[in-house]
Amino acid sequence: MTLTDAAALSPAEARARFRDGLVTPTSGWCDGYTQANLMVLPREQAFDFLLFAQRNPKPCPVLDVLEPGAVAGPLLHGDVRTDVPAYRVYVDGELVEETPEVRRWWREDLVSFLIGCSFTFESALAQASVPVRHLEAGCNVPMYRTTTRCRSAGAMGGPLVVSMRPVPAAQVADAVRVTARYPAVHGAPVHVGDPAALGITDLDAPDFGDAVEVRPGEVPVFWACGVTPQAAVMESRPPLAIAHAPGHMLITDARDSDYLM
Amino acid sequence: MTLTDAAALSPAEARARFRDGLVTPTSGWCDGYTQANLMVLPREQAFDFLLFAQRNPKPCPVLDVLEPGAVAGPLLHGDVRTDVPAYRVYVDGELVEETPEVRRWWREDLVSFLIGCSFTFESALAQASVPVRHLEAGCNVPMYRTTTRCRSAGAMGGPLVVSMRPVPAAQVADAVRVTARYPAVHGAPVHVGDPAALGITDLDAPDFGDAVEVRPGEVPVFWACGVTPQAAVMESRPPLAIAHAPGHMLITDARDSDYLM
Repeated sequence: MTLTDAAALSPAEARARFRDGLVTPTSGWCDGYTQANLMVLPREQAFDFLLFAQRNPKPCPVLDVLEPGAVAGPLLHGDVRTDVPAYRVYVDGELVEETPEVRRWWREDLVSFLIGCSFTFESALAQASVPVRHLEAGCNVPMYRTTTRCRSAGAMGGPLVVSMRPVPAAQVADAVRVTARYPAVHGAPVHVGDPAALGITDLDAPDFGDAVEVRPGEVPVFWACGVTPQAAVMESRPPLAIAHAPGHMLITDARDSDYLM
Repeated sequence: MTLTDAAALSPAEARARFRDGLVTPTSGWCDGYTQANLMVLPREQAFDFLLFAQRNPKPCPVLDVLEPGAVAGPLLHGDVRTDVPAYRVYVDGELVEETPEVRRWWREDLVSFLIGCSFTFESALAQASVPVRHLEAGCNVPMYRTTTRCRSAGAMGGPLVVSMRPVPAAQVADAVRVTARYPAVHGAPVHVGDPAALGITDLDAPDFGDAVEVRPGEVPVFWACGVTPQAAVMESRPPLAIAHAPGHMLITDARDSDYLM
């Protein structure tokens, strides 16, 4: 299937393919529909996690939370156990498997968090003629652990993780303006132009994703990143946690335009 | 003490007076500082409540949540057990006492929620020359239970409660514009001009607070109200709940300007 075909699919059609076993990154799929980070935790850990998200809304913008045990909800007319192309399962904070479905891990006390993803604002950047380097390069966005700590909540705490996009100096203001209109999906940048102030020593060595070129006249612009909640959950070592595999997002039935201010 | 004196006090000074036993409504106190609705619940009920708030952000805008057992936090350099002028204590959903301090009810598993209050945007309305009738009349704002249900979360569910302010037809747009800039404290109105559509049959008979005059040429404008979370908590009948007494708010160390978009 070409990317053009994938872009034209409805969320239900895309999720049916993933449910049937297709494993693929979801960038570019289901144009106009909101893709989400997934984090599933036992109810015992869910309060600390929800409070962590409430205290750190830029990296952890909660789009919805399913009731304990529920596998569907208003933003997901599907099955959260099977409809993501690939999952990562963590036991006591250690990755134990990457798998295309998690029915055998399911328990009635599991709470699923749907968290906003920067895919939503990237199409808005492109529409505003702001270049998005990693999309041009066909690779993953570079992400960095920073020395900035999130505000912790009970057992949940960890570093702020940021994504970086190089922006021509004349378009930085546009990039801020466009993304600020999407506060539910990370919103405006947290930092513009000084990697060292975030404790980032080498832009060419991201902690997650792929390095991209920063050209002369471009400024590195940093946004709060949806990997932040995963970093906090791993630090807190819950007995069980299920997340999407990086880049393999949950495609929801919400529309990107729903999150435009 | 005159209201002018009260307006000039710092939050710490005001809270010291309440801690020393002064019982008074807080409207007009500590000009420029944010006043909050208080809801204290056992940790066992706290997840459902936080999720209820996340799902109903207009009536339940969470400003901060203290850690279980904590009596202070970044927005409150004081003691949440003593620094509100008057509290209401509910056991199994029934009001058991109204009291100036709740130290004897305190437990290490209690979680305190600080929830935004429309006092913040009322001063902005006044500055924009939008009349605020109940302030002119020196009474409490009229509040109504509606037939609109909030989106429930676990055991927490209840009706949307709204406050009403009559606004001259030519200034309704100003009232919307001004309050929309404060999404953390209820934000823009939920409804303009048709009480019956909310199930309100008689504007002169509010469910809480005081009736105010709606003059010819004025439109009743309805905002989501901070009484909504109390209504939901009461419906869910938790073993213990502690709230502020109506109009007797928690004065925080945050500034109203912090919540201006």
